[in-house]
Order: sequence, then C-alpha cells, then structure tokens
Amino acid sequence: MTGRTPSTRSDDRARPDVAVVGAGPIGLAIAWRCAARGLRVVVHDPAPGSGASAVAAGMLSPVAEAYFGERELTGLLVESAARWPAFAAELTEATGADLGYRTEGTLMVGLTGDDLAEARRLWAYQQRLGLPVTPLRPSELRDREPALATRVRGGALAPTDHQVDPRKLVPALRTAAERAGAVLVPAPVRRLGELDAAVTVVAAGCGAAALAGLPVRPVKGQVLRLRAPGGVAPGFRHVIRGYADGEQVYLVPRDSGEVVVGATVEERRDTDVSAGAVLRLLRAAVELLPELAEYDLVETVAGLRPGTPDNAPILGPLPGRPDVLAATGHHRHGIVLTPVTADLIADLVSTGEPDPLLAPFRPDRFAGVGPAVGGTDSTMKGDRWN
Amino acid sequence: MTGRTPSTRSDDRARPDVAVVGAGPIGLAIAWRCAARGLRVVVHDPAPGSGASAVAAGMLSPVAEAYFGERELTGLLVESAARWPAFAAELTEATGADLGYRTEGTLMVGLTGDDLAEARRLWAYQQRLGLPVTPLRPSELRDREPALATRVRGGALAPTDHQVDPRKLVPALRTAAERAGAVLVPAPVRRLGELDAAVTVVAAGCGAAALAGLPVRPVKGQVLRLRAPGGVAPGFRHVIRGYADGEQVYLVPRDSGEVVVGATVEERRDTDVSAGAVLRLLRAAVELLPELAEYDLVETVAGLRPGTPDNAPILGPLPGRPDVLAATGHHRHGIVLTPVTADLIADLVSTGEPDPLLAPFRPDRFAGVGPAVGGTDSTMKGDRWN
Repeated sequence: MTGRTPSTRSDDRARPDVAVVGAGPIGLAIAWRCAARGLRVVVHDPAPGSGASAVAAGMLSPVAEAYFGERELTGLLVESAARWPAFAAELTEATGADLGYRTEGTLMVGLTGDDLAEARRLWAYQQRLGLPVTPLRPSELRDREPALATRVRGGALAPTDHQVDPRKLVPALRTAAERAGAVLVPAPVRRLGELDAAVTVVAAGCGAAALAGLPVRPVKGQVLRLRAPGGVAPGFRHVIRGYADGEQVYLVPRDSGEVVVGATVEERRDTDVSAGAVLRLLRAAVELLPELAEYDLVETVAGLRPGTPDNAPILGPLPGRPDVLAATGHHRHGIVLTPVTADLIADLVSTGEPDPLLAPFRPDRFAGVGPAVGGTDSTMKGDRWN
Repeated sequence: MTGRTPSTRSDDRARPDVAVVGAGPIGLAIAWRCAARGLRVVVHDPAPGSGASAVAAGMLSPVAEAYFGERELTGLLVESAARWPAFAAELTEATGADLGYRTEGTLMVGLTGDDLAEARRLWAYQQRLGLPVTPLRPSELRDREPALATRVRGGALAPTDHQVDPRKLVPALRTAAERAGAVLVPAPVRRLGELDAAVTVVAAGCGAAALAGLPVRPVKGQVLRLRAPGGVAPGFRHVIRGYADGEQVYLVPRDSGEVVVGATVEERRDTDVSAGAVLRLLRAAVELLPELAEYDLVETVAGLRPGTPDNAPILGPLPGRPDVLAATGHHRHGIVLTPVTADLIADLVSTGEPDPLLAPFRPDRFAGVGPAVGGTDSTMKGDRWN
C-alpha cells in the first residue's frame, strides 16, 4: 500500500498505464492494487457502485456456494475467501473504514425432511471436496441459534463462510483506490476505442457484453432488507442459508439491525420487484426464523448479476488482444471473488505473466469470443498470454 | 356549486365564518360544501391530504363493511354511499377531475370451507339488515372473475359497494374547495384558541385527540400497492374482499394497472411496515388471485386511521361548545362517509339545526368528553344543539 496521490506524480497528463472500465468492487479493487504497485490508473464509471454490488448481500461463502459440477469455480472461491481476512485488514488499515466484516460462519439448514435430504446431498458433496462442513443435530443447531424455528429438521456449520457489507466495502475500495493514486472519471465508456491506456481492464459487469463482446448476460436477483425493531441487533449471529419447503433463502444479519434476505435467480433483465418473489422470500425467511415477522421491511430491490455460460467469471486477455483484460462475469460471487480477482489481474498487468489460477477462466474458453473489439490501438498484442 | 373565488369577496380581511382544521377528504369536503353555501371558509393544514387518506384504498362499501353490532354506523354508511354517485358527478363537474370512481361492485369470497362458513355468517347478517347481497355459486363467481383461484369455495356480490381513488379524490376536493372560495392556510394549528372564526370544525383525524380532547386513537393499517406488468389494467374488475385461510384481505383494481391490497388493523401508533404484515397480505392476495404473484410490488406503506371507542365517527358540537364541531373518528370509513359528513356538517353550520342522522354520532355519547377546549371565544354557545 502506498499513500501516493495523483498530485505527487511527475506528469499527470501522461498516458495512463491502466484504464479500468467499471467502479464496482471488482474494478475498484483492481484499481487499488494496480495503483499501489505504482501504476498510473484511471477508472471510468458514471455511477460508481451502482451495479450488482448495491444489491448484494456480501456472503463470503465458498463452501455453501460449492455446487455440483463447478469444481474449478469452487477452487477459486476457496482461494479468494482465504485471502479475505488479510484483504479486509489491509483495506481497513488503508481507509479506517468499517467493512461489516464478520466471521461467525454460516449455518446451512433444512426445514422439512425433504429439505434436509436435499441439503444433505450437497453437504456430502462439499465434504468430499475436503471443504469444512460440520453436520449438526437439531439441538446443536438451536444451541448456536435459539431463534431458529423449532420445525427446522437439521443443519450444518460452514465455519469459514464469512460475510462483509457490500455497501460499506465499495466506498472503502473507492477511498483506497483514490488514496493510492487512481483517478475516477465519472463518465460512461461507450466504446473501448475511446480509451487511451497501455492496458484496459473491462470490469463493467453486465456492460462487458456490449463493450467487449463477452458472453455476459444479466441474471436478475430480488433481495429484501429487514430491520430489527427498536434499533437492536438481529436475534441471530450466523449467516443462515436454508431450504424451506423447497425454497432456498439466505439471511444475513448485520450489527446495525439489518437482515438481508435473498435472493431470486431469474433469467430476466428488468429490475422490477414482483409480489411473488417478495412473498416467497418472506415466507421462507419467516418459516426458518419466526421472529423476522416482527421486523420492519425497509427495502425491496432487484439487481442484475453478470452471469456467464458456465457460472464462472471471465478473467484475462481477450483473444488476440493482450492489452484488453476481462474481469467480469462474477455472477453470484463478485464480493467473495474481489480479492483474488484484484490480485491476479494486477499481477498480470504489472508482470505480463498470467497466474496459473487464471487458466480455467480465460475468455477464450467460450466459442465465438473473438477480437470483436473495435477502435483501441493494439500495441502489446500477443506478448502476454501463452 | 359556485365559481366564486376569494378575490371577489367584499372584505377579505373579515373574520371567517368557518375555520376547518384538517385538509383531508373530510375537512376539504366540508370546506367545499360550506364555501358553496356562500360562507367564508379557511382550512388549516400544514400537509393537506397526508393523513389516512393517502394510504386508504377508497372502497365505498357499506354492505361489505356492515358488521355485527354496528347497526347505526351501517345506516350512515348506506346513506353516504347512496350520496356518492351525485357527489362524484358534482365534484367532477366542478373540477374536471377523474376520481377513479367505479361501480362494478364488490365480490366477497371465501377460500376454504372454514373461510366460507365465516363469510356466510356475515352475509346472512347483512341480508337480514335488508342490504343487497347476492350469494353466488363458484361457477357464477368465476364467470364474473375468471382470475379467481379455482380453490375459492364460494362468494357473494354486493353490487352497490363501489370504489374511488383517494389519491385522486383529495386533490379534486382541494380544487373544488378553493374554486368555491375556501382559503387554505398551510400551517399547523396547535390550539383551537389560535383560530378566530364563528364556527370551528375539527376534521383533524387522529389530531382531534390533542386538539379537542376527543376519544380518537390511531389504528395502524398496512397497505400494499401492486401494478400489473406491462402497463395494462389488472385482470379483474370487481373489488374483491376475501377470507383466505383465516386472513381477511381486500383487492382493489384501478384502471391504471394498480391493485391496492389491504389492510392490517393494529392498535399501534407507528407507521413502520412489518415483514409479517406484508407476508400475510401477499399470501392471502395470491391465494385468492394467483396472477398477482406476477405483479410488481410498487409500494408498501402504513397509515393511521382515527379510531373511536365504538368504531363510529364523532360528528357534531362539543359538549357545551356549539361553536366547535367535531368531524373526525371515521376510522376505516373516511372515504365512504365523506359526502354525508360534508352535507350534514355544512347544514349544521349554515342552519344551526342538526340533522337527525347526526344524533347517534354526537361527541357527548362518550363519558368524559367535556369542554376541555381552552382559548376559543364562546359566542353562539348553547343555541345549536337540542
């Protein structure tokens, strides 16, 4: 970390080393890491932090998110979650910001016998991968969280699945990036050709499709925010992820009294809040934690995640364009993947050598992703990715 | 109706004939009626239309609201509902405003056998009062509203229970009152003694307790507003009032695509929206009309109704204070009772003679309601009410 600001640079009008498109957590963290390495960084975004992160719950859940057939993604999630404690500490040291980072762990629960059977199948898979999942008897579950409904049939603890508050994270990342010398340009980028930098990083979430021809599509998620009455903290401490009568829901408690309840996963590109989604989320939430019925409903909102064909992010140079790096497609995992994405992309920018961790996430793993990017200059072509 | 404006009066600085406290529908309709009779009227309210009417659904439901043990209230509801067609026509003529007045009638339905049994007990009572209630077989019900859930066990039609949109009604009443010459003073009234008028009308909703010592208490109601997707009208035309698994709910369709879903009745004075209330309302609504799950949830809101010990309004002079008239305590019935309240209070102001319809609703029916009103002058005392 450096405390350098742009005004101490010798030539502010020189061509930037890195242009980052998108000031969500991914773009800002890349900008912070690059600027801290002494690179000249410009971040372009007309509305920083207004994308998927504004809606995200902030679960850091490599274990609970480990799903059948997504083994390489799970590896990256585990790697990034392992980096989170140091990342959070460094960010807090750089900014003084409280990130709402909490380490109580995640309880995974099943309401009915059917729910529990479905959950156990997944927990067994997660254990086979060597991930830390500890099954709990109902009595052990209630010792940990007495507020759980007595109907809950069983559960398991994922002690390393933590949480952070994205609405605190993004402003902190912006502060850290700017203190390290990155410059934020609050204007949209319509074509990559508008940018003049040695390397361009496309961290534009769903916008990466139009900007760089990447197979990123919006995946709608509806999320609620409740608040414990009387300004007290919620009556539970763990992140709770449950199956309730076939409905999946997560409940993320914050010290402020807020509880995030989410989320739908819908192949739609609108951000309307639907009565049916709110009903399903509230029903599942109240079935698992009856006291939530007494909480205030303070926000109903929908956001668009940047989804990809294989649910994994797209990280690395565009085919035939080593000067344009993708860092998008993080889907449901943008917050947990922020540290590893920032580290690996900043390393790639500064060394030109891709970390082996990036290999499964290259843009060229998708057929038809080609150099359909018009207008940027093409220096540095071909000399970075083997 | 007159088109007179204040500037045509001979002496604008003269003492008003009538000071109305409260610019909700009741206060504004009284002001309109009084001004139209040639009286000099001033209406005091820092935030016109911001009380219970801003949340109200606008059902004009004397029949569906006819409840055991509230016979005199039912009589007044029926009387006022009968005045609504002419009142709406006159208001539209005076202002050109669309009031969202609709006359398709109200369908009362029961989802389960238990729900239907409970509803039928009430319908029988309503029929014994001579009110127009027509039981319908399930097939007749679905002929009228094909969108009703196939589970709905039975229902009845109240053809004279209509609806209006309170958010259109209140601005129209304000326009009508001002065009008739009433003057709106956008400031709060802290004590009746601040006012200098021949007659004061307390139409301050819940505020009537502090202002005039009346037994009016806030009764919280939570209400949702949904919207049919794609900007079309809802897929049903009647107001629907249902029992669904023991939960009572109403569904009010508007031409704009809006559907009002309400309402809780809670002895609380906060206006927080609770997760449990939204869950119960949405669950009942979707059980009765499954297509509502696809509607957008566009508003969740809570308001405070002015409730009274016997659920009936308080209309007429305070005991020992014939110059101070109460027009408050309308509880769930403020919109339907607007025409009769305005007519009867305006008559009382201009003739000094109370209509016999007012007798059951006198303020002095409550023990302990006395002349606890400080500071107003006491001319006209004792010469109006027998």
